[in-house]
Amino acid sequence: MALQVRVAGTGKYLPGQQITDEQMDAQLQLRPGWVRKKTNVITRHFIDNETASEMGAKAAERALAEADLTFADIDCLVCASGTMEQPIPCTASLIQRAMGQEDSGVPSFDINSTCLSFVAALDVMSYMIHAGRYARVLVVSTEVASKGLNWEQKESAALFGDGAAAAVIERSAPDAASRILSASMKTYSSGARYSEIRGGGSAKHASEYSKSTEADFLFDMNGEAIFRMASRLLPDFLKDLMTASGASIKDYQVVIPHQGSAMAMRLLRRKLGISEEQLMYITPDHGNTIAASIPMGLHEAIRQGRIRRGERVLLLGTSAGFSLGGIDLVY
Amino acid sequence: MALQVRVAGTGKYLPGQQITDEQMDAQLQLRPGWVRKKTNVITRHFIDNETASEMGAKAAERALAEADLTFADIDCLVCASGTMEQPIPCTASLIQRAMGQEDSGVPSFDINSTCLSFVAALDVMSYMIHAGRYARVLVVSTEVASKGLNWEQKESAALFGDGAAAAVIERSAPDAASRILSASMKTYSSGARYSEIRGGGSAKHASEYSKSTEADFLFDMNGEAIFRMASRLLPDFLKDLMTASGASIKDYQVVIPHQGSAMAMRLLRRKLGISEEQLMYITPDHGNTIAASIPMGLHEAIRQGRIRRGERVLLLGTSAGFSLGGIDLVY
Repeated sequence: MALQVRVAGTGKYLPGQQITDEQMDAQLQLRPGWVRKKTNVITRHFIDNETASEMGAKAAERALAEADLTFADIDCLVCASGTMEQPIPCTASLIQRAMGQEDSGVPSFDINSTCLSFVAALDVMSYMIHAGRYARVLVVSTEVASKGLNWEQKESAALFGDGAAAAVIERSAPDAASRILSASMKTYSSGARYSEIRGGGSAKHASEYSKSTEADFLFDMNGEAIFRMASRLLPDFLKDLMTASGASIKDYQVVIPHQGSAMAMRLLRRKLGISEEQLMYITPDHGNTIAASIPMGLHEAIRQGRIRRGERVLLLGTSAGFSLGGIDLVY
Repeated sequence: MALQVRVAGTGKYLPGQQITDEQMDAQLQLRPGWVRKKTNVITRHFIDNETASEMGAKAAERALAEADLTFADIDCLVCASGTMEQPIPCTASLIQRAMGQEDSGVPSFDINSTCLSFVAALDVMSYMIHAGRYARVLVVSTEVASKGLNWEQKESAALFGDGAAAAVIERSAPDAASRILSASMKTYSSGARYSEIRGGGSAKHASEYSKSTEADFLFDMNGEAIFRMASRLLPDFLKDLMTASGASIKDYQVVIPHQGSAMAMRLLRRKLGISEEQLMYITPDHGNTIAASIPMGLHEAIRQGRIRRGERVLLLGTSAGFSLGGIDLVY
């Protein structure tokens, strides 16, 4: 069943501190060129004093402007991020406040599937929009990766960036080409330990933080195990997704993957037969911005004129969990 | 538009440590009777060494057994909790693993609106079920409040309990009475600071924890401000919800509120005209179990025979954010 839902506008926000690969080489005490060779992240942005909700509000304002709308046109605000600003309340309500809409009453809650949060939120909320419950939903992914990086894990530390992206999702006209053709998500928790931050929730409260436990409160990634799992599961996952909508890979004008790593990008091209022209590759000037990565790619594809209305787009990614997610849509 | 969705089964799990009001009086160094008088929480349960995902898995297994189903019948697992087990990955994937279903592929993600997480998840997921995307969804709320309590804020510390509750949600037969008649959510972030845990996310990382900052990593509640906000907003919120489905308060066999506090329960009765017979009041032997509170009330209402198939039920609550949420359904 196709859903009459379209992306009305997107916005992106990158925080002020721009860190080059040379600066990262120096910070990690590595020889010049290591970061570029290993990660191909030439520039990533880190926050100074900004909060996740402030970044999210800025991306959201830009998405509203792109869609020629104001907040008064929005019926629901979903924060779709893998990192939270604070444990209580949810980040969506902090974004509502940062947008100066604290008396609006617009329902605001979070959907979290780490790096796939935006894909999961678009998937779930598209059913509410199609059914007419909400006419327009603002989906905001805002990520502060820099606070949780483990500088001892040099490759993962060099990979991530902070930033936010947002999209206004709305019901498309019955005769419009824009729609969601199929969507899928799968979770295999046998990979739940392959990327995690163990401390900071109820299992290991912040009060247990010490020099000897500090690594538990930082991002811990087993890149090789994730790569093996993704290699094994992605081809069939994508095949099933395309079968559901009768697509073949050549039908997509652009494929917008989660920018997990340069290695993950090569995997997509080689294993899934995605051409260089199709693949949206924004890793070099963004890094891996967690859940903001896919909507940033979507925003850039639209801004650069790589997709136009009526053209077919594939959103695709993996996340901690371990989850796979994809959406086949007509922009 | 009514949604053809029903609750197929529910389950509840309370952890092993049972704390009486007398024990709580002693722990808080208060005179005997203070906790009972202030909170009316006679028994709350706290975890020993259990995790949120282990509790959630137990409640989920019981909900499946009640529905006469197994995990193989489930298409999606949503964790709907206000507290997380660890920052990455989402708690839903940890529950999937705790259920021994790590190779199932069942999509697993979190929906968070603090105390209203279950209501938000049921609301959102009911559209996916109605549309046939998922035949059955397991919604699990599992909360460890005890790790985040501030023992200097005696009234709030005495109020909360740990525990989990789960519900299997499925599409109801076209000729069945069971359905969701209307649902609503509103968020007013002007109240975002009235209940919060400021530390533990990206705004204040665990590494900033110290004796002088410890209160930032614990629950902080301005009960009076929340009470005033709820008093002001709840009557119109409920009126709008009932108008949408043409209900009057007498139509509900049972009203299942979030067990926020004894004061909140009195507010519901006085301001909204809910009778003692209608009101599901489980505060005395559970405390406020955050998002697990409403599905625990639903579970108890079914178990105690207070609602039967075809009878009308109102789920209603407020949460940090500040949000209001409600669902009008036929069980």
